Amino acid sequence: MLTKLLCEFGATALMIIFGVGVHCDTVLKGTKYQGSGHMFAITTWSFGISVCLFVFGGAVCMNPAMVLAQCIVGLVPWSSCIPFMIADMLGGFAGAVIAWLMYADEFKASDGVIDPIAQRNIFSTNPTTEGTNYARNFFCEAICTFVFISAILAAANRAGENVLMLAICVGLIVWAVGMGMGGITGFAMNQARDLGPRMAYQVLPIKNKADNNWKYGLLVPGIAPFVGAALAALFVHGFLGMF
Amino acid sequence: MLTKLLCEFGATALMIIFGVGVHCDTVLKGTKYQGSGHMFAITTWSFGISVCLFVFGGAVCMNPAMVLAQCIVGLVPWSSCIPFMIADMLGGFAGAVIAWLMYADEFKASDGVIDPIAQRNIFSTNPTTEGTNYARNFFCEAICTFVFISAILAAANRAGENVLMLAICVGLIVWAVGMGMGGITGFAMNQARDLGPRMAYQVLPIKNKADNNWKYGLLVPGIAPFVGAALAALFVHGFLGMF
Amino acid sequence: MLTKLLCEFGATALMIIFGVGVHCDTVLKGTKYQGSGHMFAITTWSFGISVCLFVFGGAVCMNPAMVLAQCIVGLVPWSSCIPFMIADMLGGFAGAVIAWLMYADEFKASDGVIDPIAQRNIFSTNPTTEGTNYARNFFCEAICTFVFISAILAAANRAGENVLMLAICVGLIVWAVGMGMGGITGFAMNQARDLGPRMAYQVLPIKNKADNNWKYGLLVPGIAPFVGAALAALFVHGFLGMF
Amino acid sequence: MLTKLLCEFGATALMIIFGVGVHCDTVLKGTKYQGSGHMFAITTWSFGISVCLFVFGGAVCMNPAMVLAQCIVGLVPWSSCIPFMIADMLGGFAGAVIAWLMYADEFKASDGVIDPIAQRNIFSTNPTTEGTNYARNFFCEAICTFVFISAILAAANRAGENVLMLAICVGLIVWAVGMGMGGITGFAMNQARDLGPRMAYQVLPIKNKADNNWKYGLLVPGIAPFVGAALAALFVHGFLGMF
Repeated sequence: MLTKLLCEFGATALMIIFGVGVHCDTVLKGTKYQGSGHMFAITTWSFGISVCLFVFGGAVCMNPAMVLAQCIVGLVPWSSCIPFMIADMLGGFAGAVIAWLMYADEFKASDGVIDPIAQRNIFSTNPTTEGTNYARNFFCEAICTFVFISAILAAANRAGENVLMLAICVGLIVWAVGMGMGGITGFAMNQARDLGPRMAYQVLPIKNKADNNWKYGLLVPGIAPFVGAALAALFVHGFLGMF
Repeated sequence: MLTKLLCEFGATALMIIFGVGVHCDTVLKGTKYQGSGHMFAITTWSFGISVCLFVFGGAVCMNPAMVLAQCIVGLVPWSSCIPFMIADMLGGFAGAVIAWLMYADEFKASDGVIDPIAQRNIFSTNPTTEGTNYARNFFCEAICTFVFISAILAAANRAGENVLMLAICVGLIVWAVGMGMGGITGFAMNQARDLGPRMAYQVLPIKNKADNNWKYGLLVPGIAPFVGAALAALFVHGFLGMF
Repeated sequence: MLTKLLCEFGATALMIIFGVGVHCDTVLKGTKYQGSGHMFAITTWSFGISVCLFVFGGAVCMNPAMVLAQCIVGLVPWSSCIPFMIADMLGGFAGAVIAWLMYADEFKASDGVIDPIAQRNIFSTNPTTEGTNYARNFFCEAICTFVFISAILAAANRAGENVLMLAICVGLIVWAVGMGMGGITGFAMNQARDLGPRMAYQVLPIKNKADNNWKYGLLVPGIAPFVGAALAALFVHGFLGMF
Repeated sequence: MLTKLLCEFGATALMIIFGVGVHCDTVLKGTKYQGSGHMFAITTWSFGISVCLFVFGGAVCMNPAMVLAQCIVGLVPWSSCIPFMIADMLGGFAGAVIAWLMYADEFKASDGVIDPIAQRNIFSTNPTTEGTNYARNFFCEAICTFVFISAILAAANRAGENVLMLAICVGLIVWAVGMGMGGITGFAMNQARDLGPRMAYQVLPIKNKADNNWKYGLLVPGIAPFVGAALAALFVHGFLGMF
């Protein structure tokens, strides 16, 4: 159990180092890859997650919504539900802190140069037209989480013991979902990915912070992924007949 | 049979959510990935289709032209031909409606800002020099469908039970065909992909619509893929000796 | 034997439709993907070749230099050497003609607008500082062909019966060799890829043609790939101990 | 043993031809792919390394830090440690010389046109805000090497005899680590990759050289990868229980 919790924590932290790291990389002043664009960033998120699975294996969730889905289909015991979720949230927070440590000099150099909202968005997902349409954003996050988790569960079922193949498929899933469905809310699909780094942004010594948009964070990436994940679990088990 | 029809419907809808979604993403005002370019969009189409196969398995057609080809080589019984085609067309329509729902606010914001033709092209394929050379466009669509379906059938034959490998290969096929042969007609190769979302554009409450180019839609992406698919089935069975 | 020759012819033609097609796509006036850049084009060449192998299987050469290498290591009988090479050359010519047919309207529209040298380079590879350093260009083409063919032969040996895996590896090989070693001569590595379409450019009714640079074509992409391929065959057999 | 040393030498040289080659390609005046950007370059490094593994097999290290890690987990005998490291360093030097030979004309054309620091950075990694924060840069190199080597060792353990799958995974690992963690120090993670070509830059007849930044080279990419690699070996063996 402790090993599993440490795997959840470590894998989630690693995922966030990749993901928050690449946004630091493409946004902050003085980085090598500033302005490298969305495909660059989404590719890093995608295959960064593959790397986490290469290391920690195909059973790791890295995502409270995924934990819920795996509890529903029976892959994770309900007794592990809350502990896994907490481990994931802490991992998301820790990963963002490590990424900030790596790019701390660039954060300093960006103060007063890079828009505070752009800096905040390095950490958390926020909608394009902020706050104007919570229902729409909730709907989008629920749909993309539904697709994301359905696809991973189905791929895991088909992959069997082939962890490397599963990990590559998960990377491709994030590639497609991120690019095809991420243009509105930024494809959080995961509380540990959004709220963990959002909390890190709150407490880290970054100057001139933008409003951290907690209301959005808690309502949309905080709740919608659970809805999408639960529907995905029902779909994969009930319709596809897996697990 | 009902399950298979629902799989056809669902897989096609999902494919179109990815594909129409990514065009919304890169074209409409106010989206995160506006202007991300053709490689971004084609990558989404490609590996979005892989995701559909991860979820629904390697037997799903998502394309009336593919249904025809699989009937000819004997993978799909002729009695399923018309039902599958109808399920695919309905899925294409439904997927476009869902994508529109996700991006409805951006469609509103784009009214009067984004060219109506560019908005229409989010849904359907249209040639670059419209209407001037139907024979050439028919020829191009028939060729790229021939290559597309030949390659998928051959890869399916070689993949055997390995659905994930097949799905990855299909993504790579769309990548290559889309980029290498799509520059003229936009690689429809599929009535459900073109005419389903074209119908959605017709009926959705989008303002200041461009002409929907039905004549082109019905003649070129409506018919040419059947020609290419039938030739592909004959080639794969008759020359390659598969199925 | 006839089937094998037809496979060589067809696979090479298909490869060139992808490759010359994507250059039409990104260079000619009026195409959808004009200006999409080098990564777009090299990706198409790479996974277009994967598609050829999905369709025609892992034994197809599509390249006189590869035919020579496979004769040396014993994968192709010497009696097939010249016939395979001729089939490949004819395939390269035919593929370029088909690509031209698909983009004929755009060639017309490009007359007087797109630089004749850029149009010629759609078909054949030409060095950046043309004609000034044949020795250097020969050396580059020999090296990149050596790497290209060594890698494919080694991957084929490791892949065994897994044609799809081999095809994916070949795509990745072209990706890396094209981007990492192609910046000088344009990574021909294949007489059928260079001289076949160069001949097509010679005879097709394109207006205002640039000099077709036959001296370069025959000396560098005409001969250097044989040198690289022979060395690759010796290396793979003699040092790696394969075949 | 001699074969293994030659494999280490050859594989490392090949990796550097790809990697230094692609930087020549995108930086020097007169190359075909000048200005093709970071994704282009990182993709070449990534799948160029895959190609090295296709050719030389999954056991090759190409990296003194990896040699150390593999000695610690028992994959490489300690008696081979220093010889392998020397072979890797020589391979890195030789690869950079070959890449320079291929692009020698472009180096001449770039004299006085392309910034000497940009030319130096073709060969070696250097931080963005040079020399100002050694501790931070050391920390970054140690972390990204830790992730890089942990992921490769874990993937190798999971891949078993499937060398091609391992090679593809290694390419994806470099893709993610390079893009997500490379924005500060340029992801050396390997003395042979950094110090070998740095030495080549020192001795090659390039005009108007920039300061070669040896202090940084020896302290950060020279030492930090050993720290990351040792920690990775302990983690993979001690925590993941592999090898």
